[in-house]
Amino acid sequence: MDDHTKAWGGRFSAPPDARLEAFNASVGFDVRMVREDIQGSIAHARMLGRTGIISAAEADALIAGLVAVRGRVDDGSFALTVADEDVHTGVERHLREVAGAVTAKLHTARSRNDQVATDLRLWTKGAILAVAAGALDLADALMRVAAAHPDTVMPGYTHLQRAQPVLLAHHLLAYVAMLDRDLDRLRQAHRRTDVMPLGAGALAGVTYSIDREGVAAELGFAAISANSLDAVSDRDFVLDVLHACSLVMLHISRLADEVILWSSAEFRFVDVDDAFSTGSSIMPQKKNADVAELARGKTGRVFGHLMALLTTVKGLPLTYNKDMQEDKEGLFDTIDTLVATLDVVPPMIATLRFRTDRLAEAAVADFSLATDAADLLARNGVPFRDAHGVVGRLVGECVARGITFAGLSDEEWAAAHPVFAGQRPPLDAASSVAARDVPGGTAPGRVAEQASGAGAAMAGHRAWLDGERGAWERVMTNGVEVASRVDARGVGGGATGGER
Amino acid sequence: MDDHTKAWGGRFSAPPDARLEAFNASVGFDVRMVREDIQGSIAHARMLGRTGIISAAEADALIAGLVAVRGRVDDGSFALTVADEDVHTGVERHLREVAGAVTAKLHTARSRNDQVATDLRLWTKGAILAVAAGALDLADALMRVAAAHPDTVMPGYTHLQRAQPVLLAHHLLAYVAMLDRDLDRLRQAHRRTDVMPLGAGALAGVTYSIDREGVAAELGFAAISANSLDAVSDRDFVLDVLHACSLVMLHISRLADEVILWSSAEFRFVDVDDAFSTGSSIMPQKKNADVAELARGKTGRVFGHLMALLTTVKGLPLTYNKDMQEDKEGLFDTIDTLVATLDVVPPMIATLRFRTDRLAEAAVADFSLATDAADLLARNGVPFRDAHGVVGRLVGECVARGITFAGLSDEEWAAAHPVFAGQRPPLDAASSVAARDVPGGTAPGRVAEQASGAGAAMAGHRAWLDGERGAWERVMTNGVEVASRVDARGVGGGATGGER
Amino acid sequence: MDDHTKAWGGRFSAPPDARLEAFNASVGFDVRMVREDIQGSIAHARMLGRTGIISAAEADALIAGLVAVRGRVDDGSFALTVADEDVHTGVERHLREVAGAVTAKLHTARSRNDQVATDLRLWTKGAILAVAAGALDLADALMRVAAAHPDTVMPGYTHLQRAQPVLLAHHLLAYVAMLDRDLDRLRQAHRRTDVMPLGAGALAGVTYSIDREGVAAELGFAAISANSLDAVSDRDFVLDVLHACSLVMLHISRLADEVILWSSAEFRFVDVDDAFSTGSSIMPQKKNADVAELARGKTGRVFGHLMALLTTVKGLPLTYNKDMQEDKEGLFDTIDTLVATLDVVPPMIATLRFRTDRLAEAAVADFSLATDAADLLARNGVPFRDAHGVVGRLVGECVARGITFAGLSDEEWAAAHPVFAGQRPPLDAASSVAARDVPGGTAPGRVAEQASGAGAAMAGHRAWLDGERGAWERVMTNGVEVASRVDARGVGGGATGGER
Amino acid sequence: MDDHTKAWGGRFSAPPDARLEAFNASVGFDVRMVREDIQGSIAHARMLGRTGIISAAEADALIAGLVAVRGRVDDGSFALTVADEDVHTGVERHLREVAGAVTAKLHTARSRNDQVATDLRLWTKGAILAVAAGALDLADALMRVAAAHPDTVMPGYTHLQRAQPVLLAHHLLAYVAMLDRDLDRLRQAHRRTDVMPLGAGALAGVTYSIDREGVAAELGFAAISANSLDAVSDRDFVLDVLHACSLVMLHISRLADEVILWSSAEFRFVDVDDAFSTGSSIMPQKKNADVAELARGKTGRVFGHLMALLTTVKGLPLTYNKDMQEDKEGLFDTIDTLVATLDVVPPMIATLRFRTDRLAEAAVADFSLATDAADLLARNGVPFRDAHGVVGRLVGECVARGITFAGLSDEEWAAAHPVFAGQRPPLDAASSVAARDVPGGTAPGRVAEQASGAGAAMAGHRAWLDGERGAWERVMTNGVEVASRVDARGVGGGATGGER
Repeated sequence: MDDHTKAWGGRFSAPPDARLEAFNASVGFDVRMVREDIQGSIAHARMLGRTGIISAAEADALIAGLVAVRGRVDDGSFALTVADEDVHTGVERHLREVAGAVTAKLHTARSRNDQVATDLRLWTKGAILAVAAGALDLADALMRVAAAHPDTVMPGYTHLQRAQPVLLAHHLLAYVAMLDRDLDRLRQAHRRTDVMPLGAGALAGVTYSIDREGVAAELGFAAISANSLDAVSDRDFVLDVLHACSLVMLHISRLADEVILWSSAEFRFVDVDDAFSTGSSIMPQKKNADVAELARGKTGRVFGHLMALLTTVKGLPLTYNKDMQEDKEGLFDTIDTLVATLDVVPPMIATLRFRTDRLAEAAVADFSLATDAADLLARNGVPFRDAHGVVGRLVGECVARGITFAGLSDEEWAAAHPVFAGQRPPLDAASSVAARDVPGGTAPGRVAEQASGAGAAMAGHRAWLDGERGAWERVMTNGVEVASRVDARGVGGGATGGER
Repeated sequence: MDDHTKAWGGRFSAPPDARLEAFNASVGFDVRMVREDIQGSIAHARMLGRTGIISAAEADALIAGLVAVRGRVDDGSFALTVADEDVHTGVERHLREVAGAVTAKLHTARSRNDQVATDLRLWTKGAILAVAAGALDLADALMRVAAAHPDTVMPGYTHLQRAQPVLLAHHLLAYVAMLDRDLDRLRQAHRRTDVMPLGAGALAGVTYSIDREGVAAELGFAAISANSLDAVSDRDFVLDVLHACSLVMLHISRLADEVILWSSAEFRFVDVDDAFSTGSSIMPQKKNADVAELARGKTGRVFGHLMALLTTVKGLPLTYNKDMQEDKEGLFDTIDTLVATLDVVPPMIATLRFRTDRLAEAAVADFSLATDAADLLARNGVPFRDAHGVVGRLVGECVARGITFAGLSDEEWAAAHPVFAGQRPPLDAASSVAARDVPGGTAPGRVAEQASGAGAAMAGHRAWLDGERGAWERVMTNGVEVASRVDARGVGGGATGGER
Repeated sequence: MDDHTKAWGGRFSAPPDARLEAFNASVGFDVRMVREDIQGSIAHARMLGRTGIISAAEADALIAGLVAVRGRVDDGSFALTVADEDVHTGVERHLREVAGAVTAKLHTARSRNDQVATDLRLWTKGAILAVAAGALDLADALMRVAAAHPDTVMPGYTHLQRAQPVLLAHHLLAYVAMLDRDLDRLRQAHRRTDVMPLGAGALAGVTYSIDREGVAAELGFAAISANSLDAVSDRDFVLDVLHACSLVMLHISRLADEVILWSSAEFRFVDVDDAFSTGSSIMPQKKNADVAELARGKTGRVFGHLMALLTTVKGLPLTYNKDMQEDKEGLFDTIDTLVATLDVVPPMIATLRFRTDRLAEAAVADFSLATDAADLLARNGVPFRDAHGVVGRLVGECVARGITFAGLSDEEWAAAHPVFAGQRPPLDAASSVAARDVPGGTAPGRVAEQASGAGAAMAGHRAWLDGERGAWERVMTNGVEVASRVDARGVGGGATGGER
Repeated sequence: MDDHTKAWGGRFSAPPDARLEAFNASVGFDVRMVREDIQGSIAHARMLGRTGIISAAEADALIAGLVAVRGRVDDGSFALTVADEDVHTGVERHLREVAGAVTAKLHTARSRNDQVATDLRLWTKGAILAVAAGALDLADALMRVAAAHPDTVMPGYTHLQRAQPVLLAHHLLAYVAMLDRDLDRLRQAHRRTDVMPLGAGALAGVTYSIDREGVAAELGFAAISANSLDAVSDRDFVLDVLHACSLVMLHISRLADEVILWSSAEFRFVDVDDAFSTGSSIMPQKKNADVAELARGKTGRVFGHLMALLTTVKGLPLTYNKDMQEDKEGLFDTIDTLVATLDVVPPMIATLRFRTDRLAEAAVADFSLATDAADLLARNGVPFRDAHGVVGRLVGECVARGITFAGLSDEEWAAAHPVFAGQRPPLDAASSVAARDVPGGTAPGRVAEQASGAGAAMAGHRAWLDGERGAWERVMTNGVEVASRVDARGVGGGATGGER
């Protein structure tokens, strides 16, 4: 075996066992970072040339070669094997095929430890943006449905028991409030990811006069890492993303659970569109809310990935340990899960058909207005605790007799409490809802306020997303423009100073 | 869209949204159960014919068709697409291609709910056997290394501080004891998996006079499920497997941690073979115990899969819910992880080269024999607590003076305690080790006892494994023999009664 | 500070920092094992005397002292402080108060490492029995409710959609099937716990001729540990208990979820007894199924404890590490949670009032009998897939017209399929249920079979429980009888041979 | 039983079962929020008076009563029983004892749902500050040790193999970088906690014209919740705290793992102070780094609490469900764990005695300078990959011959590569360290830069902490000042407008 087939073979007297190779190889999954790896190498090569660590011609040759390798990725001819070990070595092998001996210079002033951390951060930045875009789509869908139902009342629940009438829009906006926090959390995770480790070397920094800030700027990183030991051993940013994604899924799971309940024969509050339902191979009548169930079910795996990485990193001494190779698959699967879920849940929500008559009927059934009755007493000077007792006994009586408040006679009201001789609590949902006219409350004006606030918050998140996404895309396609300039420069030479 | 493209399309007015199809499809992973699905269908078809639910000719046609589909699997021409939704529908589509209209009869008296549960249990039975085989390989490797080191002493540790000398064989056999429990656990998980749900229908049983025991016998199941509602909603067996696998990995992680420590420059107790080590792309001198690190790191993901499925199943009402589709990927990845780890860790262990001189030297350094000194006093009537104090003060004094027990003069021994005037504790590891001559202790005879007991236990596990593996393989290849008989019968007819 | 206040102070030049003491002390929780610690010490002391390691008089004095300390536990005068560090040291301090200097001999041939492992296993054995008793109570409650409802039909669900009618008894027995597996698992965990580590010493065995089997017999252990290094570092049995308890809670959570659904205004299948419901401080009409909600909610913490201990033990080198002190609190809280939950859930289940009219009505609504219609076609030679399509289209039509099967005219039936011209599928739940007459199915005879099988299984578990509980209680009170004999022997001496 | 003993008894015909009461009661743990509950009630009562919902006299009486109840807390006479159910009801009972009938008015315009959420957020805000203070203490300890070792070199590790020399200060500052992120995360969690739900009522808002902003200002909340349904069902802030605390513990676990390694006989890099070590009851020579082990071990439980709450909240429909009562114990235990750990780990770190000679010796052993040799070749035009191969072979040769680089002759150097004929790589750690003179690198000037940056970051965190802590303490003692003003007002009446 030629020493060059592994990047590290020099001191070894025996080749690796095939089982080690298979076990060790990350190429099966880290190939997802191939574009990030190439962009990182382009920026690194350019910096090596700019600082004179390698010659300008060598840098140009490396960059041109890397652009050619990226072409292989574009046209599908970029293939890897287990013998490549990881995507970084795989890219290097391809580069050697197109650029020849100069390839051996690319690894100057760089280790796989800082390289892989850089690739992963670059990838993760893009991944966070994809999740954020999906979260915004879901918020949009919820806000649109809410806007379409300004007056629809429904039963508000505690303990899955009907509690008080609320507006459907109010209920849906509660999920938008959760997504607002989620986006906040994703943005914070993004900021902590947005730090470039390149230049940390294996662990201690490098012995060359590199230009870390320049590379960071070219790769669109907001900052460079402050401590090289930390830089190669820190996976906090992955944990932050897994936590943020766990909460997104938690919220989707709660929403999904409600869609499942609401579309049951017992609730019948909503029809899930046929396009987002499935049937049964044996029961011809079945129509199942599979999307909601699967979304709820997939929450577990995201929690599992969070737990897995916490467990893996715990107790590892500094700095890099091979255990950390396990940081990627859980993250990739998490992002895939979120992106897929956020692709299908928003249209499923947007196409829900609410049965507003069922909702309205349910909103006032089962003594949901009892609190209003107690509040009426309280407003007439009855201490609330006493008022609660009075109305509670009235409810108990009605339940025993199988009637509702509407079935009580004037005498019975008056007997319950003298205040009821003169006044009667509202027996319709609209009045009840309108009475909860406090900030955050369910009165229509208050819900409109909330919708407007949520819209503004989402617009802010969207602006952030658009800005970051534009920047990220420029970084990821940067090499193309560079390539043409490289060609031009290949003819006439010229300074590299102005290229950024 | 033709109704037939989905098994459940009849009542739907609109085709599924492409996003739903992509989200919903399990075909990307459940294709791993294709052979189990085919065998299950063969047994089901044969039973339908045997019981007269379909005609013998229809049964034969179905079986011949299923054998042909299995041929496609064998020769690599069995392809699936997202539109197939899941492997069960995919097999049915292929069957229709080879067997035509009779295919529509295969789903008689069966639902996807009991079908998928049966396939998964059949697959899991095989998977448990593969993990058990790997665990046995690891136990073998450990026992062989132990056998090669009958007298090698090493420091025994508590709190990662040298505590008392032990035999290396004793230390390695501790891991065999763990694996013995693991195999116990895997066998119990196997037994709970070994129950056939087929016949539960969608949830309530079926309206045909099926022969569940017959199908179970043909598929090698030890029992049939007792309650159909439980049968389609029970995933306890997967959780049991994930728990058993979590403990296997926990034990491997502890062992791996020791290999990593032992191969550090500071311990230098062991050399990992070059074939199971890797190097560094930047540091030419590095030799890393990657296999051990990765094995340790992969433990986290198995814990994560356990947590994921616990979370997913929790709180689901009966019976089947789509959330349960999430039972597979974590299980598959767990088994893959275990099988890969148990493929590479045993040879890594088997090829370790222990530096017995370093071990021996370390075994008696740092006052590891202090307990023996205290025991000597105790055997001479000094209450142990007091003896402990005497020796503790002696150690403190030595530490302060930078010497060991060997550096103490006769007067100093006598001054520490009068007993020491006449007798001196052992100052060599062999005597110390030999003195711990109790069941389970580190004396050579006791360790030999343990080795012999462990060997017998493993032989028992191996016999179980061989028996179950043979049975399982017969089930999985059963169709081939059947196929020839089907052909023969195709000519001359003949009873189906004797075929099992 | 006197060296003796800690069991390990000899070699130290400085006393522990108060913050270390507070952090380190386990006395706040391990005091729960005080009785186990005392019994373990009694057995150890008796063995030391029996084998002549200490004198018979010393053994008697120790045993009498330990019985006196147990008296303090009984009468509430056994107090511990943080300075006691752990319960073992605390017992020793109390023993010194009552027995004086001989106390220093108790620690002969024993380390805290094997002592704490023994105490914990003894405690855990009792704890498993308590959980098993609760699981049996829950199974009993479910079986009694099932027996009270031999003919009650209800809708069986998949995807929370009504699927096919089932018997309520069948549904409830599904949970008994889960509990049967739980009891199986608890018994296996018990068996793995039932191994005595005492005699492993700190890690390597002890240098005295102890009688491990004798001590094990006295303490009621079925076996002694085979490898001393494993004995002091193994916490698999705790993980097995946490896993078994996680599944018990998982099943309770699923049951609880159904009780919550069933008692909602929308389902209204069941009334939770007032004695097991709570109300709202603000909404006078509310009646919440708090017990079910809390039981469901408490499931998370048990999963968390499992994950916590997996994480803690992972990656620890052999043998004992202080991290393992973390094994107890999660276990204790798990057992407390299970015992509390299994105390309140069975009576909550036993007092449920099912609204059989609502159940019956729901059982046939929503085309739950459509499978029966398809089966009818299939039995008349229509391939099932085609039959499914025919009935699916019929359902779609009914849904569009807002009618049920009962609303279809003869012509419409015949138009759907010629078979329906002559025969009509059952339109009542009883016929549908009766038709699923296969092992495990929902036909009344089959459900009776299941009830009988479940009853037999539970009787088997109960017999095991009674046997183990009796044995465990004898061990835990053994000292009392011994105490009288000790007194007797204190006078006349006598052999120890016959005392067990 | 009197209706009034529960806040919700009105409609119930039967009293709660004792088992329900015991199971349901949270009073055993939520009593920790008693001060927060009282302050919340004081602010609520004052607002009710200010807005005229109750009379000024009633408000004054309630406030005076609440201050009196707080006095009971202060003097230890505030006792609760299981019958009190939760701390809120308990406070109300005490209030009734001191303030009489007016107590029944306190619950006006408030539900337990918004009350408990408010109490918990108030408590959590204080808890985050306590954790942040501990994290700052740990950072301080690390920075002080780093400052005391400006030139101490040690081996830097990857894969637990010596890789390249680094400064000890650099290594320690890596942990400060982690704590910097931790503090960032804690501050973000604090900001998300700092939102007042009071006024959300049971779920829908209240029917009174309350002043939410005024109450928020009095209680020191930065904002009020925007959506009442979300307000009572949101526990994201607890999950954020559990995640932030999980990462703090993860970092402490990694540090602890190193302290354990470093204090082993094999590393012997550091002596843990006797005051933070413990010994063995059986082995007189042992000195164990228990604090580090326990800190590492306690990490698991914090992860477990995170997982527990994620699991519990997942899948709950809106709004409040009793499952959520499970939010507290895990949080309380997490905070207790963090506070205890951060109390003892900083002094343990601060009192470590580093063996600088051992560190220096280890720093250059084992070819740790091989990278420098390869870099020398690379700087002389040898492609790095080739240079790596040259030096790797040289290392292999030395290992085989049992020598180090220092043992190579001039001819051997030259034979390895012509460049080595003229130049030789550095063979001392100081030169190697100094050469890594890039931002984040290990050169002394760069480490000084990092120390300075870390100091500034921590000063920023400290300023935030001091500000928030002052504000929080004012809120929590507010009642005292108010009390005196209440007394004054009790005489002369007067407006409440100016009191904030």
